[in-house]
Amino acid sequence: MTTKTLNDHLNWRYATKKMDPAKAVPQDKVEAIIEAARMAPTSSGTQPFEIIVVTNPKIRGQIAEAAGGQAQIIDGSHLLVFAAWDNYTDARIDEVVGLNVDARGDLPMLHAYYDQLKANYLPREAEVNHAHAARQAYIALGVALVAAAEQEVDSTPMEGFDPEAVDAILGLKERGLRSLVLMPLGYRDASGDWLLPMKKVRKSVDTIVTHVD
Amino acid sequence: MTTKTLNDHLNWRYATKKMDPAKAVPQDKVEAIIEAARMAPTSSGTQPFEIIVVTNPKIRGQIAEAAGGQAQIIDGSHLLVFAAWDNYTDARIDEVVGLNVDARGDLPMLHAYYDQLKANYLPREAEVNHAHAARQAYIALGVALVAAAEQEVDSTPMEGFDPEAVDAILGLKERGLRSLVLMPLGYRDASGDWLLPMKKVRKSVDTIVTHVD
Repeated sequence: MTTKTLNDHLNWRYATKKMDPAKAVPQDKVEAIIEAARMAPTSSGTQPFEIIVVTNPKIRGQIAEAAGGQAQIIDGSHLLVFAAWDNYTDARIDEVVGLNVDARGDLPMLHAYYDQLKANYLPREAEVNHAHAARQAYIALGVALVAAAEQEVDSTPMEGFDPEAVDAILGLKERGLRSLVLMPLGYRDASGDWLLPMKKVRKSVDTIVTHVD
Repeated sequence: MTTKTLNDHLNWRYATKKMDPAKAVPQDKVEAIIEAARMAPTSSGTQPFEIIVVTNPKIRGQIAEAAGGQAQIIDGSHLLVFAAWDNYTDARIDEVVGLNVDARGDLPMLHAYYDQLKANYLPREAEVNHAHAARQAYIALGVALVAAAEQEVDSTPMEGFDPEAVDAILGLKERGLRSLVLMPLGYRDASGDWLLPMKKVRKSVDTIVTHVD
């Protein structure tokens, strides 16, 4: 239980630049972060992504090399790699249908819905489908970033890496996955992080929002 | 202050299918949801999206028509339209640099960082840049969906609409924006919503997560 609000979490978190290699994130906190990502909504409930949790230091070292040496990948204790489906397939959608049937019963409307979804998705270019899957993964990323803050765990969303290299290191291509974003988990090294004392920068509400009344 | 956890919020929320047209979301709750989206992190802090808040019933009617008649758009009291930049431009990135300078001072590393970002982004195809911007908007969407649940406001993320029609209705193209996702806000009509009594469907942790220890 927490007495902090979402707004508190969003203000507490920041893209941690220096993590303390001596502090590991407890397993229950890692699990809570993953659970939040798992519960995130996705378009038509396909959940078209996976999360690879890397603790192995050698593999994290290889991934850090593919990410310009960003030290949080090694100094944190866990690295979450969000990877989206390279394409929608018949089999992948059937698996989603199966889960729905298990939970809700063998409803005709359910089959009709996913038959229509297949008719829409399967003829499209793989790249279009991957782009759509990637967006869904980013919903889960947003939720996971909040979850980490709620657990008072620091994290750093990172797109600055060579995705093909990371795919090769983790064997993702063979699994029909493409890495999107890295999210190291750890604890801030408050004295060593140049970003921590800096003011958070966000656009004003007026810049971002238009009203149509 | 709340005593509910993120996990509670994620379990409470669902893609509301039937909203009660008699209940409007109070302004302070709408503002809290927008504030969460505003505070969501984005790649290099560009916040490359805007949110159009539509209350006008006639305009919502037009948008509903472009969305297969989905009634939540009209039955809810507010419609959030997430729209991403159609491209990264010199001027848009300069605005981000300006905000950073205002908040953190005129630091050489800051200019060097965004000069490098321009060198990476500006030569790319508009479509590649829009796709990147769209992903950032989906981080904010994820955060906004959590925020709505925290406010005990129902919402329904919707991709099933004609984005070009919505862009035309809202004049987004002229502003260099492309609509991505609709998020009606309102209150569930518990007796009229077929989805509410149904079990939430999510993949197991084992299906989504791989460990590399």
